[in-house]
Amino acid sequence: MSKIIAINAGSSSLKFQLFEMPSEEVVTKGLVERIGLDNAIFNISVNGEKQTEVTEIPDHSVAVKILLDKLTKTGIIKSLDEIDGIGHRVVHGGEEFSDSVLITDEILMKLDKLAELAPLHNPANITGIKAFKAVLPNVPAVAVFDTAFHQTMPEKSFLYSLPYEYYEKYGIRKYGFHGTSHKYVSERAAELLGRPLEQLRLISCHLGNGASIAAIEGGKSIDTSMGFTPLAGVAMGTRSGNIDPSLMPYIMEKTGQTADEVLDVLNKKSGILGISGFSSDLRDIEAEAGKGNERAELALEVFASRIHKYIGSYAARMYGVDAIIFTAGIGENSDTIRARVLRGLEFMGIYWDPALNQVRGEEAFINYPHSPVKVIIIPTNEEVMIARDAVRLAQ
Amino acid sequence: MSKIIAINAGSSSLKFQLFEMPSEEVVTKGLVERIGLDNAIFNISVNGEKQTEVTEIPDHSVAVKILLDKLTKTGIIKSLDEIDGIGHRVVHGGEEFSDSVLITDEILMKLDKLAELAPLHNPANITGIKAFKAVLPNVPAVAVFDTAFHQTMPEKSFLYSLPYEYYEKYGIRKYGFHGTSHKYVSERAAELLGRPLEQLRLISCHLGNGASIAAIEGGKSIDTSMGFTPLAGVAMGTRSGNIDPSLMPYIMEKTGQTADEVLDVLNKKSGILGISGFSSDLRDIEAEAGKGNERAELALEVFASRIHKYIGSYAARMYGVDAIIFTAGIGENSDTIRARVLRGLEFMGIYWDPALNQVRGEEAFINYPHSPVKVIIIPTNEEVMIARDAVRLAQ
Repeated sequence: MSKIIAINAGSSSLKFQLFEMPSEEVVTKGLVERIGLDNAIFNISVNGEKQTEVTEIPDHSVAVKILLDKLTKTGIIKSLDEIDGIGHRVVHGGEEFSDSVLITDEILMKLDKLAELAPLHNPANITGIKAFKAVLPNVPAVAVFDTAFHQTMPEKSFLYSLPYEYYEKYGIRKYGFHGTSHKYVSERAAELLGRPLEQLRLISCHLGNGASIAAIEGGKSIDTSMGFTPLAGVAMGTRSGNIDPSLMPYIMEKTGQTADEVLDVLNKKSGILGISGFSSDLRDIEAEAGKGNERAELALEVFASRIHKYIGSYAARMYGVDAIIFTAGIGENSDTIRARVLRGLEFMGIYWDPALNQVRGEEAFINYPHSPVKVIIIPTNEEVMIARDAVRLAQ
Repeated sequence: MSKIIAINAGSSSLKFQLFEMPSEEVVTKGLVERIGLDNAIFNISVNGEKQTEVTEIPDHSVAVKILLDKLTKTGIIKSLDEIDGIGHRVVHGGEEFSDSVLITDEILMKLDKLAELAPLHNPANITGIKAFKAVLPNVPAVAVFDTAFHQTMPEKSFLYSLPYEYYEKYGIRKYGFHGTSHKYVSERAAELLGRPLEQLRLISCHLGNGASIAAIEGGKSIDTSMGFTPLAGVAMGTRSGNIDPSLMPYIMEKTGQTADEVLDVLNKKSGILGISGFSSDLRDIEAEAGKGNERAELALEVFASRIHKYIGSYAARMYGVDAIIFTAGIGENSDTIRARVLRGLEFMGIYWDPALNQVRGEEAFINYPHSPVKVIIIPTNEEVMIARDAVRLAQ
């Protein structure tokens, strides 16, 4: 028996989940927000009850100290010695990391270098790693990468048709993200299907505020919709997904913005928000579309139809498909998006049951029993994957 | 009976084809190159024999005069009065033109305005129109647009998930190109299948140095791979096709190029040329790949696999497909690309015969007789479409 803490550090936030392993029981979890800002907020659930505290938290080290203090004072753990490992989510592992890794000083230097590929995410992840290292220097820490699962993609999938030296010199290629989630749901799908993962062709649709689709053959990612960054692929809450590459200079010229400013628009003001004009939250959009708002309806159709087309594309990629998986906020909860995504796919063997599709947020098959291709809702659990890898590598 | 001349004017070139209508017999055809440069070249075929002349051709008006002079002097026509109409290819018709149009002064002004959307192509097309107008002011002239056929796309297909005002203010949307070719082969496919076009779901693969895929339902384009410009979609001879939109600012920063310079790389140094490092010509790449050149092999795989995935995507888009069409230089002639593109699509009802696939440059079914989805090679003929529209609208 051991206790493992899974950490997801953002630039001003720290999400945590404490696991009892190997039972995978969640002992506690919580979120620190507004680190470094006025009125930081510390949330933790103690015996199933959520406690919130507003206080000054100048940096991640202080957040970690408050967290560890809380864990012992509330009696969640008796002593810090009970913590046997820390698993850190790290967004970008580049081509260097095709698996999670025990963090050493050398690894930390490599992660610093990779920050160039994910300037918005990796530095925050590293801040979290350093904050824990300062307080618990002797507890093994493991980095779990969003990109690692996709490192099995063959070159024909990950290479852009750009001058080849851009790949060699600058690491320009498709990396893919949400790997920990795609890996979790694909393993869970094999269990639910009662078939060896090695024999399955799966299409995993991770649909949250960020969204990506993965083609998973024999347990290995062989293609995915996100690219060099998480901007690529399908339309998302605020991200454009793929567009004609000519548009950036055209928009720069028309609006007088710099390339970085246009990139900011593509990341933060596009997607469902850009089309609807009023929200990036799919629930708002569905509510308005239900009242007859045409732009909201259009946002839903664009969002769903890009995913629908990826399913066709990735079925072709694998010469067929055994199951479609829906996960993450929208994938787990929105029956209307699932219905739009799955519409008309009978020609490729997907027969789904509108009654079963009503389910929200729980594991369920929503295909008809006779359907050659199964359709499964699987709530994702990146934290447990982080905890598992921490156990595996910390030993 | 009437004679129609079909014109495709580039910035320094003029392609022409003279038709006897309605028989659609090609009376003569040719090409003027290096207009405005030293040693311009005039090619024309007279009684099936190619004649070449190197001379000074300072501008398109002079090219047109030489052409018309040649037509009468060689006896191909007895007098210019025999020319009953001129059809001009125009690349971009914007949202204004969903069909070909008789060119008036007002239309010419509109075409001038559309040049902003296709700065490399429309001005050259307009130069051709004006040159003929100067010499044959009373002969009806018709503009035939590459974009017109795709104007039937619904908003969910043509809209980018960008701020909606970019569409309203700047016309930023997917237009699609190669429309005249996609239209020709889809109509011809219906004839060859002996079925009404209105009942067919077709995927047309126009694979030349530029390449685009179209989903054609009931004779109407409902989706296509090219976008705001012909840069988008699949990888091409020298064009990148879709890439992560974040890459432009990243490449700018890494290489010190401006946005326009990077755009130039994406248009002229990417695609098959970029990956292989030595040629944009698929025949060169196939020859080298055959000798074991790995980068050439990779270029073939990237090129074919993007098209392969579009077929899956567009089959999903139409809830199934009745026939796949291959056209243009590569589509008509490369059995190896067709084989790579079609590999493993049996799961969606595509059963093709490797023996039949050996055919080059002629109309042929290459599917097994029992295949639910037919696969057809159809040599494209944009010129005859231009001539037909000229006849229809010039009357």
